[in-house]
Amino acid sequence: MDIKKYLGEKKEIVDSALGKYFPNRSGSAAEGVFPTSLHTAIRYSLFAGGKRVRPILSMAAFEAVGGEGDEILPFACALEMIHTYSLIHDDLPALDNDDYRRGQLTCHKVFGEAIGILAGDALLTEAFRLMTNRSMGGLSLRDGQMLDVIHEVAQAAGMQGMVGGQVLDIESEGKEVDFPTVEYIHTHKTGALILVSVRAGARLGGGDEAALRALTRYGEGIGLAFQIADDILNVEGKSVLLGKKTGSDLSKGKATYPSLLGLEESKRRARELVELAVDAIRSFGSEAQPLREIAWFIVSREN
Amino acid sequence: MDIKKYLGEKKEIVDSALGKYFPNRSGSAAEGVFPTSLHTAIRYSLFAGGKRVRPILSMAAFEAVGGEGDEILPFACALEMIHTYSLIHDDLPALDNDDYRRGQLTCHKVFGEAIGILAGDALLTEAFRLMTNRSMGGLSLRDGQMLDVIHEVAQAAGMQGMVGGQVLDIESEGKEVDFPTVEYIHTHKTGALILVSVRAGARLGGGDEAALRALTRYGEGIGLAFQIADDILNVEGKSVLLGKKTGSDLSKGKATYPSLLGLEESKRRARELVELAVDAIRSFGSEAQPLREIAWFIVSREN
Repeated sequence: MDIKKYLGEKKEIVDSALGKYFPNRSGSAAEGVFPTSLHTAIRYSLFAGGKRVRPILSMAAFEAVGGEGDEILPFACALEMIHTYSLIHDDLPALDNDDYRRGQLTCHKVFGEAIGILAGDALLTEAFRLMTNRSMGGLSLRDGQMLDVIHEVAQAAGMQGMVGGQVLDIESEGKEVDFPTVEYIHTHKTGALILVSVRAGARLGGGDEAALRALTRYGEGIGLAFQIADDILNVEGKSVLLGKKTGSDLSKGKATYPSLLGLEESKRRARELVELAVDAIRSFGSEAQPLREIAWFIVSREN
Repeated sequence: MDIKKYLGEKKEIVDSALGKYFPNRSGSAAEGVFPTSLHTAIRYSLFAGGKRVRPILSMAAFEAVGGEGDEILPFACALEMIHTYSLIHDDLPALDNDDYRRGQLTCHKVFGEAIGILAGDALLTEAFRLMTNRSMGGLSLRDGQMLDVIHEVAQAAGMQGMVGGQVLDIESEGKEVDFPTVEYIHTHKTGALILVSVRAGARLGGGDEAALRALTRYGEGIGLAFQIADDILNVEGKSVLLGKKTGSDLSKGKATYPSLLGLEESKRRARELVELAVDAIRSFGSEAQPLREIAWFIVSREN
């Protein structure tokens, strides 16, 4: 299959849905019931060239277990909104203090720190508003099932998941940290939301226990591989493709796989994780082919 | 009835439940699966002397429509968590830049800005985790009803509610703003979460449409009255009781009711709003007496 074509098509579906939830209101401020600056800042960050990895993973997992239709779409978009909020807050001066992301000024550089903080807050909150909207695509799903999936998303994004990883990441800067700490940061800061994207798709698509177990192993593998690949790109990627300076992890004293294990060993581990992930879903048929291709794409991408 | 006794008893129930969700782990960091600093910062702000107005309102509304048991408790606590996150973020240097709240150093002054931002993020996320937890008290509620209530909470907290009001508040600082703008800020920044506290309690307690309409008018009235009372306290309250300097609204150039209408007219409006609120629930029996007393308490409190 042509994975680039698949990713492009899915990205378009996600972009279009996000555009519906956050329509372009330029020139019609009077129409909006919320401050225009907030809306503009949210759109700026939501449409800043994201690859839509998390929503696409949730859609691919949904389809891999036989899910049909676009019931998954509000959840897929909510996952991207949570991811986007986390990037906006990560970039703030008090955290990573990044001026650029994907070649564009970061949210707080354009709109100021206050709006950056509040745009992140709004995106996180709106993600839960979207997932709990029963009039939006989720009608044929059991309500209890939806509650459980939202619960799992909150768990992955909260203090025992993404935020917890982010705290440890910030606190480890400039310190010598051991391998388990780096692994904790990676599996929580990045891995948890990737894993829950896969699992949410599978649960909403009606996957059975065995499928969910297999896809959990898949999600754990690619979640960690994704972050290792990010670390590697930060060392040897092309700035022009990444849209930010390489070497920033090193200059900030971030604990990474390459800094602890070296580049070659990190690459070997990332490949090994992808192999394990793909192996975990070997019993799935051709409907899981996108998941397999995405796994390999994750360690071969250039940005 | 003795409203102070009622408020004290309910506060204790809320405090105890919050203590269960965020147990005191001092001295046992190894036990925690999340960074200790984050947990400590969250507990610091959650137990900084809040009056628990929002959870108590939700419990009182729950009981006013005949709700029984403690199914409301996770929702009540989630409302307090959302309120606490909003205070932590409001106090940040990029926003209101406050060093003290309720006589204690603000979260970011004790734990640093990064942890302040992330503690707020975690509290907001954990609030949704708590509300979607079907194994925690909510079992006899219909799942669909729970989804709808959570949806309404997200709407009240998000860009069309609290965050939207906060953005306009920040953007209006030092500017001359008109009365509709101040009203927008108050009804969104403070009013929306108070209103949804009342409505969530009533919906989860099984209130019918008529009861919900009446309680909505009640919630709108006390929500606005609460913020006007806050504005008045900021002018003529006792610093020692408020735990922060009075006059800060004026020095920051905040648009408030007293600055636009004067103190006496503001007090008159607050009383009028409470009268309207109490009148809206006149058909309710003695089980709504706490709601009536809380309404009057809101405009007579000293902190």
